Amino acid sequence: MNAEIICVGTELLLGDILNTNAQFLSRELAGMGFSVYFQTVVGDNADRLLQVVQLAKSRSDLLIFSGGLGPTDDDLTKETVAKAFNDELVLNEKILEELKETFKVRSFGHMTNNNIKQAYVPVKGNFIENENGTAPGIVFKAEGKIAILLPGPPRELEHMFLHKVKPLLLSMQDSVIKSLVLNTFGIGESALEEEVKQLLNGNNPTAALYAKEGEVHIRITAKADDEEKADSMCEEYAKEFEKCIGSFIYGVNSSGLEYEVVQTLAKTKEKVATAESCTGGLLSERITAVSGASAVFECGICSYGTNIKEQLLNIPQKTIERYGVVSENTACAMAEGVAEIANADYGVGITGIAGPGNGPNGEPEGLVYIAVWYKQKVYMKKFLLTGATRQRVRRIATQHALHMLLRISQGVQDGYKEMFSEWQYEE
Amino acid sequence: MNAEIICVGTELLLGDILNTNAQFLSRELAGMGFSVYFQTVVGDNADRLLQVVQLAKSRSDLLIFSGGLGPTDDDLTKETVAKAFNDELVLNEKILEELKETFKVRSFGHMTNNNIKQAYVPVKGNFIENENGTAPGIVFKAEGKIAILLPGPPRELEHMFLHKVKPLLLSMQDSVIKSLVLNTFGIGESALEEEVKQLLNGNNPTAALYAKEGEVHIRITAKADDEEKADSMCEEYAKEFEKCIGSFIYGVNSSGLEYEVVQTLAKTKEKVATAESCTGGLLSERITAVSGASAVFECGICSYGTNIKEQLLNIPQKTIERYGVVSENTACAMAEGVAEIANADYGVGITGIAGPGNGPNGEPEGLVYIAVWYKQKVYMKKFLLTGATRQRVRRIATQHALHMLLRISQGVQDGYKEMFSEWQYEE
Repeated sequence: MNAEIICVGTELLLGDILNTNAQFLSRELAGMGFSVYFQTVVGDNADRLLQVVQLAKSRSDLLIFSGGLGPTDDDLTKETVAKAFNDELVLNEKILEELKETFKVRSFGHMTNNNIKQAYVPVKGNFIENENGTAPGIVFKAEGKIAILLPGPPRELEHMFLHKVKPLLLSMQDSVIKSLVLNTFGIGESALEEEVKQLLNGNNPTAALYAKEGEVHIRITAKADDEEKADSMCEEYAKEFEKCIGSFIYGVNSSGLEYEVVQTLAKTKEKVATAESCTGGLLSERITAVSGASAVFECGICSYGTNIKEQLLNIPQKTIERYGVVSENTACAMAEGVAEIANADYGVGITGIAGPGNGPNGEPEGLVYIAVWYKQKVYMKKFLLTGATRQRVRRIATQHALHMLLRISQGVQDGYKEMFSEWQYEE
Repeated sequence: MNAEIICVGTELLLGDILNTNAQFLSRELAGMGFSVYFQTVVGDNADRLLQVVQLAKSRSDLLIFSGGLGPTDDDLTKETVAKAFNDELVLNEKILEELKETFKVRSFGHMTNNNIKQAYVPVKGNFIENENGTAPGIVFKAEGKIAILLPGPPRELEHMFLHKVKPLLLSMQDSVIKSLVLNTFGIGESALEEEVKQLLNGNNPTAALYAKEGEVHIRITAKADDEEKADSMCEEYAKEFEKCIGSFIYGVNSSGLEYEVVQTLAKTKEKVATAESCTGGLLSERITAVSGASAVFECGICSYGTNIKEQLLNIPQKTIERYGVVSENTACAMAEGVAEIANADYGVGITGIAGPGNGPNGEPEGLVYIAVWYKQKVYMKKFLLTGATRQRVRRIATQHALHMLLRISQGVQDGYKEMFSEWQYEE
């Protein structure tokens, strides 16, 4: 079954935003076995949009749209596709009531007349509930062709696609496609490719690498008559990867290192506290982004100023004077200090130079020390994250911190420098 | 003059890579005054590519291509466009010699027979030197239409566009286009549209609304004979918006609320400290994401646990017992507490229920109290951020906190509840 993707929005044609929806939808459709032959971007213009829809309908079975479902006058995807599919839009009272309810409980923004537009749905088609926004998705069907209209904001589109549209599309396929993701950390995409090259040429299952922010995912996809068989094909193939590069795999279908950390500590009923300098609170933000984090996390201190390091984290003035704020000793003292204050099992300390530019004492941009305190010992590692923006240095630093924490909580201490409170006593 | 962008590559249709070329080219073309009406992505397939080229040639004056210029068999953009433009490709000896030279001095890779393909150029068109790679760009002209073929790798494409193609295109234009963005906060997209409806129908300048995460941008674009005139047309039009909805505009071409906060406090030489519960450090992360934040920020405390609130922020146990952790009094006490500890001019306290689900004492999901302490007074506001994910509640809460901080630092206290340490003394 062939498919095409149509993204509607003048802001895409102006280059104001990056079209991440096209990539998301393409990857998902390809993963389900659809052949995507075209992606088109068209502006908020009824005539040009109609041309695009008619052409797409003439050459593809499945049309997936993003954008143009909002309340404003230039949101006209629904009206235009209705025309091409010979359907009509009518007011759906249930959606209208829900819209009114949503606006009532929202603390800013009131429901305006143009919001009512969002409650109009096709006579012959269906609507798809939007759990993350106000514009529902829409399904049109005519002459054996299907059009699915999704809201433009990626947060809304991705959730709606994965939870509502994907099951619908899978039920239309005669074979089942299943995927599994191996999450790796600590190896770059090209190095990983060299290690597993022979496993990337398979036909069924297939495997592909996707570089994510600070990690690489291996996506294994298998096609079979039923889900169980496709799943077990994926799992068998995953074992081949484990043989080659098992030490880099930190999770399977994982939502990220922070989820693994929270789950692992929740199981052992242990707690972690964080002390951050160059990452400015990003580590505590990532840990607490996980629902249920309160069971394992109570305290994070962003000690951006030197006086805060001394005063709140009880780092001896001598340590900072002698070794500097950006040093392995200060990182260790931060980790120990925050663990003690919070009465936590683990303490993490991060200090470094996020850039842009080198530090005040000539420390190179991207130099980061991370320490994890656990059971009266401190494990430390020095990183040099060069060639990255401020935001990326901060992000990658927290990736390393979470990975260290995860490994140490799993009993792996390889590759870290073990220190014994020497930062406090050396003279 | 209208233009369209055609990106060639099966890897785009599989979602393996993000189409950053389309955004780059769109933004550049819009900035030069070209109207880009379509972007199309098509795979490495001669028939489908030819269809796309013929359609584009029938409706647009300028066609910009990316990708498919490489040495391999599935690189067929040049051959296909030559066909549509009734041109022929011939071997260019100069390019061939340069190719050979390039391969000689390169440290890896040897010149293969299929590399010779890259030395073929149109009879009637031109080639464009590639200073960052081996595949030259190509220009085709026929029947008043122009096709420009650029290599796919963004590094090569961007350099070639900026240095070779842009001067060529500018010489074809007789006017200049400039844009300006007004950043608004505190009003939803549809409410904003109702307020400024009459200003959105202009022809030159034009104005459009773009909803971003937790804020709405107004983009004003003007066309004129020179840059200075276009700029002043934008500025004049911006004044019209200021008359209507000035109180919602927090910046012009701003990088975000956190940037405005850091700049404002840097000017007044004041400092801020943060105490966060439900936002988990996101507020301190956002402030410190701004380069130069260390001048205005030294301390953030993520007091996720109740005991940390009491112990580190010195919040009276009575306050928490009487009013609860999620209360206006606790938010105020957090703001005051952290400002005192950090010896900062401003203290921000955030406490709430990010979800999923309601709080332990039945507090509704999305309930957030934010307090800003400044000069012995505390300003507080209660928010109910419903219908959003945990991540979004946290993001929007920090938007509100930054906005409160910005307004209070600008002397605006309207809309906040002023409290006088009553959380400490009420019995």
